[in-house]
Amino acid sequence: MSSTVAPSGLAHPAPATGGEPAADVVQVYDTTLRDGAQQEGMNLSVADKLAIAVLLDELGVGYIEGGWPGAIPKDTEFFARAAKELDLRHARLAAFGATCKPGADPAEDAQVRALIDSEAPVVTLVAKSDIRHVERALRTTPEENLRMIADTVRHLVGLGREVIVDAEHFFDGYRFDPEYALRCVRAAFDAGAATVTLCDTNGGMLPDWVAAVVGEVRGATTGRLGMHAHNDSGCAVANTLAAVGAGVRHVQGTVNGYGERTGNADLVTCVANLELKLDREVLGGAGLQEASRISHAISEITNISPYGRQPYVGASAFAHKAGLHASAIRVDPDLYQHIDPVAVGNDMRMLVSEMAGRASVELKGRELGFDLTGQGELLGRVTQRVKDAEAAGYTYDAADASFELLLRDEIDGRRPRYFEVESWRTFVEHRPGGGNPTDAEASVKLRTGRGRVIATGEGNGPVNALDDALRRALVGTYPEIEEFALTDYKVRILDSQQGTDAIIRVLIETSDTVRSWSTVGVGPNIIEASWEALTDAMAWGLLHNGVEPR
Amino acid sequence: MSSTVAPSGLAHPAPATGGEPAADVVQVYDTTLRDGAQQEGMNLSVADKLAIAVLLDELGVGYIEGGWPGAIPKDTEFFARAAKELDLRHARLAAFGATCKPGADPAEDAQVRALIDSEAPVVTLVAKSDIRHVERALRTTPEENLRMIADTVRHLVGLGREVIVDAEHFFDGYRFDPEYALRCVRAAFDAGAATVTLCDTNGGMLPDWVAAVVGEVRGATTGRLGMHAHNDSGCAVANTLAAVGAGVRHVQGTVNGYGERTGNADLVTCVANLELKLDREVLGGAGLQEASRISHAISEITNISPYGRQPYVGASAFAHKAGLHASAIRVDPDLYQHIDPVAVGNDMRMLVSEMAGRASVELKGRELGFDLTGQGELLGRVTQRVKDAEAAGYTYDAADASFELLLRDEIDGRRPRYFEVESWRTFVEHRPGGGNPTDAEASVKLRTGRGRVIATGEGNGPVNALDDALRRALVGTYPEIEEFALTDYKVRILDSQQGTDAIIRVLIETSDTVRSWSTVGVGPNIIEASWEALTDAMAWGLLHNGVEPR
Repeated sequence: MSSTVAPSGLAHPAPATGGEPAADVVQVYDTTLRDGAQQEGMNLSVADKLAIAVLLDELGVGYIEGGWPGAIPKDTEFFARAAKELDLRHARLAAFGATCKPGADPAEDAQVRALIDSEAPVVTLVAKSDIRHVERALRTTPEENLRMIADTVRHLVGLGREVIVDAEHFFDGYRFDPEYALRCVRAAFDAGAATVTLCDTNGGMLPDWVAAVVGEVRGATTGRLGMHAHNDSGCAVANTLAAVGAGVRHVQGTVNGYGERTGNADLVTCVANLELKLDREVLGGAGLQEASRISHAISEITNISPYGRQPYVGASAFAHKAGLHASAIRVDPDLYQHIDPVAVGNDMRMLVSEMAGRASVELKGRELGFDLTGQGELLGRVTQRVKDAEAAGYTYDAADASFELLLRDEIDGRRPRYFEVESWRTFVEHRPGGGNPTDAEASVKLRTGRGRVIATGEGNGPVNALDDALRRALVGTYPEIEEFALTDYKVRILDSQQGTDAIIRVLIETSDTVRSWSTVGVGPNIIEASWEALTDAMAWGLLHNGVEPR
Repeated sequence: MSSTVAPSGLAHPAPATGGEPAADVVQVYDTTLRDGAQQEGMNLSVADKLAIAVLLDELGVGYIEGGWPGAIPKDTEFFARAAKELDLRHARLAAFGATCKPGADPAEDAQVRALIDSEAPVVTLVAKSDIRHVERALRTTPEENLRMIADTVRHLVGLGREVIVDAEHFFDGYRFDPEYALRCVRAAFDAGAATVTLCDTNGGMLPDWVAAVVGEVRGATTGRLGMHAHNDSGCAVANTLAAVGAGVRHVQGTVNGYGERTGNADLVTCVANLELKLDREVLGGAGLQEASRISHAISEITNISPYGRQPYVGASAFAHKAGLHASAIRVDPDLYQHIDPVAVGNDMRMLVSEMAGRASVELKGRELGFDLTGQGELLGRVTQRVKDAEAAGYTYDAADASFELLLRDEIDGRRPRYFEVESWRTFVEHRPGGGNPTDAEASVKLRTGRGRVIATGEGNGPVNALDDALRRALVGTYPEIEEFALTDYKVRILDSQQGTDAIIRVLIETSDTVRSWSTVGVGPNIIEASWEALTDAMAWGLLHNGVEPR
């Protein structure tokens, strides 16, 4: 499946022509590490970038754009370390940079020099192609910009690099002055560029507009064209597909759609549509079947919460809620899913909710490893308990772990009892003046098989203090809980028209080194609801670490 | 701008024909309250639904689908209350339901009866149009399904309802058996349906496929066609646009793209593309210029964190990372943005700017009765304080009262000081056994002009107890507070990846006999944040009751 990358050893392949079999292959070019890193709040270390590059190569992209050596010191270091440390199997590394400055010789331009020094086999040059940007931002003449493109491409091609030209603001430029935009593309191809990528830099295009422009450019040039889309109109994926439909054979995107403003085209979504729906094989490597895992692993590195509704790989992407359909889904999953989630390494999930019936409880049970087929009486009991609990404010569609504990409770009391709570208390005190004017403290009294434990904890707030006290009370008996970390805490007021008397629902997400799980607690008292979710989280975690009550 | 809704009084307008001016208008149909509510983790109360309906009407959608009366008790209640409490200016309310059961007469079908009883002027019927679903899920014959559609539509039209038929799984069905899918559409139109909506229920379509199918259906029928898209391929918005391009004149979507799995078509993004890029006027009401505010207000109600990268209305949608182009962006913002963010009520964030910031502070001040014209220095100070506070997690969009107190503070300390807090404490204790195993208590020490007060309160939880103690401490000096009632209490975790260490924002709504007001508190400790919002609520209420400090 290495057909998506340029043949190895061919540093700057000739522009594709219609006669060669490779001409119809769609190259996949990832720019997570460069354009994706423009995303608000993202700050990647060199080690982060190296780790992401390994995952991208595993996914099987053809190109990995690593950054802008020379302009950003961290990126210079990335290329230096990548050359030594990375052993890429599918992808070629690309260094991003600009054409030489107005009036400059590329051979003497420090920024161009840094691209060469990066030793990346591929160089991607951003070039202006909108005449307004040439005149107003670059402040040079249209002719000089063409000279800069041609000279810089020629210089790098002469040094054995594969050169990709990213024609910045191409679509806006073309719609304003098509002739000049086309001259930029031709200047790049004539100087030996392997690919010219048409960029919707401001992200405002719509698919029909993209198809029209690409079609015209395709008719007026002969080289390989690429597409670089942003999502400002909510059409980045569709614009990429429209471009491929009109003849583009190189698509750029970022994992999880990271990027400035509304982000770049989501690479996995683009690839999944191309491979699974349009029958184009574009990835080498592990391919789409590992896409969910790789997408989530990259989220862990960027520390940006995954978006549950993300197409194909999102946690909710194949989660069905409607009870109406649950029984039919069981019979014919294909009628209710656009693809088999296995194709992208995701799972179908049934959400247990107030609309749930027995069928969805049965399916959910199967997902958790319990075969409840034919156990009508048990299913009826569990379904009723779920309905009662949801009427009281619980929600299990976001708290699988709590649902599993409930289910085990009903299946012959298979829920282990790790500890028994005697009492707990927490207090918060505020005294202005002094270092930290507000103080939270909690104490817990409980029993395990090893005896009675009393522990005191403290924290930023009452729940934090209670969590601390619970851990201190349990860790002597169950040292496993040291691995458990609270990773998310959500509070929802359910009946929000009764002020602080309202019913409160707390959802807690806990993680250990291998998994994460969610639990729910409900009550008129936020502390009590939190306590319920906290203790359920400990129980589920111990259970799934194979721990027996001690 | 009421052109998007059916002419009032015309309960079931005739199918649009080419000759009428209205035929080319694109209707906007919101299904946030029904299909959007299928989103994982969303659980809306009747009060939430009513509040969202008011915001949708303000945005200017033509239809608001409120839910499924009869099937979901909460939805039955919604319609009952909506009929009494909602005064919609632009939108018509639609009740969602199914065609009658196989073998049933719609006049005798309890579910159909509930739709009529809801008193919604519009009824939207989901109907099967994929022959495989008819046979395998509905388990009836193709002919009986057509009979069910025709009879149910005719029955409702006869009772004066505008009937919209949502043809479920239409695209998959059409691609499998076009003839049968078309017969379903014709059956609906022939029975008097105003609109037949073609649904991509599984969300797997691509824009070219949608355009092709819609084009064929358009050629084979004469009534108004609608589009209902899901985002499983990442193309919901583009699919909606493709459908409009091929002749659809009714688009369904949800605010913030809420919905099952990957969500529904994002209504605001669809509308913004149609209005701002394709020159179609589709909204009545406040329109797009209020879209960002309304989108965020709805997020507050659903308590689902807004997605920063959301097109048009996301917090990052017009945020430019300062760098290379900073100066150019200042000179020519149009070259770097696909639209002017003002058009959707959003801001370009890099420039946020003194100018934009001061202008909105000035406007807000005027709204609250302070003329700040020409007071540059004061405006600068307030703007800076707002920016610092928002960076720390405060939000004043939803807390006018807190903003007013801040503003008065800066205008020559015009914020009255009703009391000074010495200290407070609250504790919660849990002892199983006994009547109420969990007990919350709080004590407050403060000073008014009449001396030092110590009071103890109790309640369901720590915040409730603190509220009680604060009232007991103040009521002797300020009996006016007996009229104040806490009417809403919301908690949001701002940095949700740090477990219970996260920053917490509390929004409190308080009412007296004539008005209601909102205050905000922020901190790492939920109790402290609640205390801040509670004390601000008391201060604002006293101020607006004309009370001087005693």
